[in-house]
Amino acid sequence: MENKKEEILGEYIAIKAEENGVNIIGLTRGRDTKFHHTEKLDKGEVLLVQFTENTSAMKVRGKAKIYTRYGEIHSGE
Amino acid sequence: MENKKEEILGEYIAIKAEENGVNIIGLTRGRDTKFHHTEKLDKGEVLLVQFTENTSAMKVRGKAKIYTRYGEIHSGE
Amino acid sequence: MENKKEEILGEYIAIKAEENGVNIIGLTRGRDTKFHHTEKLDKGEVLLVQFTENTSAMKVRGKAKIYTRYGEIHSGE
Amino acid sequence: MENKKEEILGEYIAIKAEENGVNIIGLTRGRDTKFHHTEKLDKGEVLLVQFTENTSAMKVRGKAKIYTRYGEIHSGE
Amino acid sequence: MENKKEEILGEYIAIKAEENGVNIIGLTRGRDTKFHHTEKLDKGEVLLVQFTENTSAMKVRGKAKIYTRYGEIHSGE
Amino acid sequence: MENKKEEILGEYIAIKAEENGVNIIGLTRGRDTKFHHTEKLDKGEVLLVQFTENTSAMKVRGKAKIYTRYGEIHSGE
Amino acid sequence: MENKKEEILGEYIAIKAEENGVNIIGLTRGRDTKFHHTEKLDKGEVLLVQFTENTSAMKVRGKAKIYTRYGEIHSGE
Amino acid sequence: MENKKEEILGEYIAIKAEENGVNIIGLTRGRDTKFHHTEKLDKGEVLLVQFTENTSAMKVRGKAKIYTRYGEIHSGE
Amino acid sequence: MENKKEEILGEYIAIKAEENGVNIIGLTRGRDTKFHHTEKLDKGEVLLVQFTENTSAMKVRGKAKIYTRYGEIHSGE
Amino acid sequence: MENKKEEILGEYIAIKAEENGVNIIGLTRGRDTKFHHTEKLDKGEVLLVQFTENTSAMKVRGKAKIYTRYGEIHSGE
Amino acid sequence: MENKKEEILGEYIAIKAEENGVNIIGLTRGRDTKFHHTEKLDKGEVLLVQFTENTSAMKVRGKAKIYTRYGEIHSGE
Amino acid sequence: MENKKEEILGEYIAIKAEENGVNIIGLTRGRDTKFHHTEKLDKGEVLLVQFTENTSAMKVRGKAKIYTRYGEIHSGE
Repeated sequence: MENKKEEILGEYIAIKAEENGVNIIGLTRGRDTKFHHTEKLDKGEVLLVQFTENTSAMKVRGKAKIYTRYGEIHSGE
Repeated sequence: MENKKEEILGEYIAIKAEENGVNIIGLTRGRDTKFHHTEKLDKGEVLLVQFTENTSAMKVRGKAKIYTRYGEIHSGE
Repeated sequence: MENKKEEILGEYIAIKAEENGVNIIGLTRGRDTKFHHTEKLDKGEVLLVQFTENTSAMKVRGKAKIYTRYGEIHSGE
Repeated sequence: MENKKEEILGEYIAIKAEENGVNIIGLTRGRDTKFHHTEKLDKGEVLLVQFTENTSAMKVRGKAKIYTRYGEIHSGE
Repeated sequence: MENKKEEILGEYIAIKAEENGVNIIGLTRGRDTKFHHTEKLDKGEVLLVQFTENTSAMKVRGKAKIYTRYGEIHSGE
Repeated sequence: MENKKEEILGEYIAIKAEENGVNIIGLTRGRDTKFHHTEKLDKGEVLLVQFTENTSAMKVRGKAKIYTRYGEIHSGE
Repeated sequence: MENKKEEILGEYIAIKAEENGVNIIGLTRGRDTKFHHTEKLDKGEVLLVQFTENTSAMKVRGKAKIYTRYGEIHSGE
Repeated sequence: MENKKEEILGEYIAIKAEENGVNIIGLTRGRDTKFHHTEKLDKGEVLLVQFTENTSAMKVRGKAKIYTRYGEIHSGE
Repeated sequence: MENKKEEILGEYIAIKAEENGVNIIGLTRGRDTKFHHTEKLDKGEVLLVQFTENTSAMKVRGKAKIYTRYGEIHSGE
Repeated sequence: MENKKEEILGEYIAIKAEENGVNIIGLTRGRDTKFHHTEKLDKGEVLLVQFTENTSAMKVRGKAKIYTRYGEIHSGE
Repeated sequence: MENKKEEILGEYIAIKAEENGVNIIGLTRGRDTKFHHTEKLDKGEVLLVQFTENTSAMKVRGKAKIYTRYGEIHSGE
Repeated sequence: MENKKEEILGEYIAIKAEENGVNIIGLTRGRDTKFHHTEKLDKGEVLLVQFTENTSAMKVRGKAKIYTRYGEIHSGE
């Protein structure tokens, strides 16, 4: 594992579920882009999550507020 | 343990429980994403907590105020 | 893999699908520029995605809001 | 002990007790998250405290003002 | 490949096609400046693209909005 | 002693005693958190003091104005 | 090729041709200053171009808008 | 003596005596905190002084204006 | 050639000729200060040019607008 | 002599004498704090002076304006 | 030649002659301070010039506008 | 000669003589503080001068405007 590597991985986002069963799906970094973890949130739960050595993309499915460097994004209808 | 590694781990967030039995659940960094610690807070207690070498995600369950770089987020109903 | 390499790869963008079947197509970094992954989003789904060692360009096809350092860009129509 | 390590540890917070018997409980950094020190404050006492190589989380129990990068947080009822 | 090299390559621009058949033509870095890739965009498609080790210039032909550090530039008539 | 170590230690705070017998108590950095020095101030005296390799926490007991990165904090009743 | 070298090379400028046959002429870095590449743009075409290891100066001939760190410069006329 | 060490030591403060016999007392950095130098100022004299490898705390006794990163602090009654 | 060397060389200036025959004369860096290149611009032509390893001064002769970190400077008349 | 050492030494202050015979007294850096140089200024003379490897404190005696990072300080009655 | 050396040398100033025969005289860096180059400017000519490894001071004689980090300075009567 | 050394030396000041015979006197860096160079300016002449490896203080004698990081200082009566 390289020194500076971690630096990019460090930015976290926050996700608040606005209904039960919101899925946050981690996609793998690297040549192959695959699902590697799905975290389920119920209504009102909040997830604070970083990009990591293994995760370069995250997909949010279901009604949620996503707090990002671009402000608040609403997923779901 | 690499030099710069710590840098990303250093940002802390603050969580104030607004009811008894709020759970802050640490999820492991790395290929496998698993629970590795649950901290319970009673009403009025405040937790100041950093992302670490072992924690790349935190889930908040129960009524709480979460102080983040995106401002205040309210978990629970 | 070099130290600082990751630094450029770290900036993420966010994409919210505004209709079913939005495609986010990753193009390979390096001498040859080829498709290497297509992520499909249905309406309301949000993708948070970083440039990586393997991805130096992304193409969005279909109606979506793209959150970037230049603000919000609307694809489709 | 690595070079840059200290950098993250350096941010301090301030806590002012608003009643007798306020507890500031240090939680250990690393795989295991355990209590490693409890500092008790009486009313009016102020603690200035850094995250350290050994402390990645702090829990405040009792009525206090906590001065953080997110502003002032009030613990206790 | 050198460490810091990547840093300059990392800035991305965004291009939104305003008609079918917009061409984004990558020109090679180095002694010889040649075309090495042409990406075609249809109306409404958005391309997010970085300067890379292989690309030091990009030419946009056709009607498009180009989002850059200098603001929005309109290509085509 | 490591290179960058000192960097975190460098931030100083200022304390002005508002009555005789104000105590500034230094707590040790490291696994064990113990008192290692107590500085007494009489009314009107000002102490400018840095976090050091040996001090990761300071406790103020008695009536004083504490000048910190969070502004002025008043200890004592 | 040295590490930091690239850093200076990375700043890009944008040029929009306002008539057919605009020339962007790259001049070589180093002891001898010579033409090494001429890129021709037709009306409405936009070129995004970096200073490189081989290019330390660029000359614009013909009517064009040049987007630079000093704002917009109009060549021609 | 380590490279970066000096960096923290560099911040200076300014002290203007408002009466004769103001004492600026330097306290030693390190495990033992002891007085190592006392500078006396008469009314109107100004001292510009840095934290050093040997000084991690300074105590001001007597009526003076102290110019710090927190603004002006008045010692003495 | 040293690493950081390039950094200073990277700042570019822009020059727009306001008459035919404007001369931009490069002066050599180093013990001896001599002319090493003269670039001629005709009216309306724009030159974007960096300080380089070989050029530490530039002289502009003739009527031109020079865009610099100090704003716009008018040569000639 | 260490690399970064110089960095802290670099900040200069300016002193303008407002009467004849103003003394700027340099105090030695290190374990022993002693006078090592006295510069005398007559009315209207200006001294621009850096902290150095040998000077960690300066004392101004007599009527003068001292220009510092905290603004203008007036020494002397 | 050392790495970082160049960094200080990089800041450029601009000088516009307001009469014929303005002299810009370069003074040598190092133990001995001597003239090493005189550049003459005629009215309207502009010189953009960096401090270099060989030049640590410049003297302007004659009527000119000097563009510096402190704003515009007018030499000559 | 050390790498970073130069960095502190790089800040320049500007001095404009307001009468004939203004003296700028360079004082040596190091244990001994001695005069090592005197530059004389006549009315209207401007000197741009850096702190150097050999100069850690400068004394201005005579009527002049001194442009510094603290603004404009007037020497002489």
